[in-house]
Amino acid sequence: MTLKVYADRMSQPSRTVILFCKLNGIDFEEVRIDLAKRQHLTPEFKEINPMKQVPAIVDGRFKLFESHAILIYLAGVFPGVADHWYPADVFKRAKIHSVLDWYHSNLRLGSAAYVRNSTLAPLLGLPLNPKAAAEGEKLLLASLVQLESVWLKGKGRFLLGSSQPSIADLSLACGVMHLEILDDEDRDRILGPHKRVLKWIEDTRIATRPHFDEVHSIVFKLKEKLKKQRSKENDFGESESIRKAPLHSKM
Amino acid sequence: MTLKVYADRMSQPSRTVILFCKLNGIDFEEVRIDLAKRQHLTPEFKEINPMKQVPAIVDGRFKLFESHAILIYLAGVFPGVADHWYPADVFKRAKIHSVLDWYHSNLRLGSAAYVRNSTLAPLLGLPLNPKAAAEGEKLLLASLVQLESVWLKGKGRFLLGSSQPSIADLSLACGVMHLEILDDEDRDRILGPHKRVLKWIEDTRIATRPHFDEVHSIVFKLKEKLKKQRSKENDFGESESIRKAPLHSKM
Repeated sequence: MTLKVYADRMSQPSRTVILFCKLNGIDFEEVRIDLAKRQHLTPEFKEINPMKQVPAIVDGRFKLFESHAILIYLAGVFPGVADHWYPADVFKRAKIHSVLDWYHSNLRLGSAAYVRNSTLAPLLGLPLNPKAAAEGEKLLLASLVQLESVWLKGKGRFLLGSSQPSIADLSLACGVMHLEILDDEDRDRILGPHKRVLKWIEDTRIATRPHFDEVHSIVFKLKEKLKKQRSKENDFGESESIRKAPLHSKM
Repeated sequence: MTLKVYADRMSQPSRTVILFCKLNGIDFEEVRIDLAKRQHLTPEFKEINPMKQVPAIVDGRFKLFESHAILIYLAGVFPGVADHWYPADVFKRAKIHSVLDWYHSNLRLGSAAYVRNSTLAPLLGLPLNPKAAAEGEKLLLASLVQLESVWLKGKGRFLLGSSQPSIADLSLACGVMHLEILDDEDRDRILGPHKRVLKWIEDTRIATRPHFDEVHSIVFKLKEKLKKQRSKENDFGESESIRKAPLHSKM
């Protein structure tokens, strides 16, 4: 029975799981759960994930959610996943857990809150929230400093000084790529000072192409869509309307 | 070389790691990092954990932080840790990862934000913040509903329907126990409706005593200290002063 991945590529953790499957030749069916259409709130999806979030997987009779738990599970049960993704070595593995746990309460929390509340909300049918955006930005900026000075301080091209990427690289790189939804000026202001982060993203992209570019193509589509929406509003002098759009995007 | 655990028992994840060590007869030295005295911000502690947070461990030459990563590491390297804490079975293990990941962005985020901003802040030399407390409370209440309806819905006494506790029970139970710092009325309002959660806490306490009570004794001491502070202020009609106390607690 084929692995089912319930996902919306608008969601960063969904992109991470899809990317991992593609990179490792895991045969899977991508089941689109359209967040903008509130499909994650249906009774059918609640049977898959009672927490009503994507991504989630069904592997035969086994159901699982939370992207990091999914990545670790897939690395364990699918033959042919190279050791560098989730090393058997207890010390390397422990450090990867440490990065992944840190990510939850820092980079992920900051980037998701900032992107959603400053830019993305209208595409999810939600209002923008400048105050929540400011709080998210504070955490995001501090997290980027830590990413650069702690996780990327080693000699290797990847996190923890490794010469090959792990699931932590995938999760965190997808987290940083989420910032590409922002308009160019904002994105450059936030990411520009972090040359080591940008270099690492490029190294990760190269190590995982063409799949990295493919799963992130939606990010650039969303960015274009938002840009057009903003320019339309500027033409009509309705700069506030984007904040109030009910929006049930089909993207 | 003895394992060193850098911790402040005022911190919930610190208590979880200490509890795990005691339960499994792991020989360790507890190194107090006094958060109220800002000892986590010293250059010496930055050498241990560049993220400046407790808990952190040093095991020989190996340094690690993030409580869940520490628990998994300890379960893997110390002989004699029973399988139920972190089962070798890939499906059971995956579900435990799912609970632990969920915890970061839900129960932990909600309970820490609510307790700190509604009650604990003065003991850390910080101001109370009613707005942040209200946001934390919202997430906390939703998390308790999910804890009861999803993680505790099985037949066993412990999370995921298990008959024996895992590291997920320890982490989440310590998260719920953090609410005991609140005054009785507030604690009862939040926890009272969740009979299954209260039963599970009691089962976890019984399964892990006397260590569970011992590591949580500080919670009840903090509660008493805060109670006295409030009653003193009421006597002097200075209900606001607790919000401004500079406080470098020795507790």
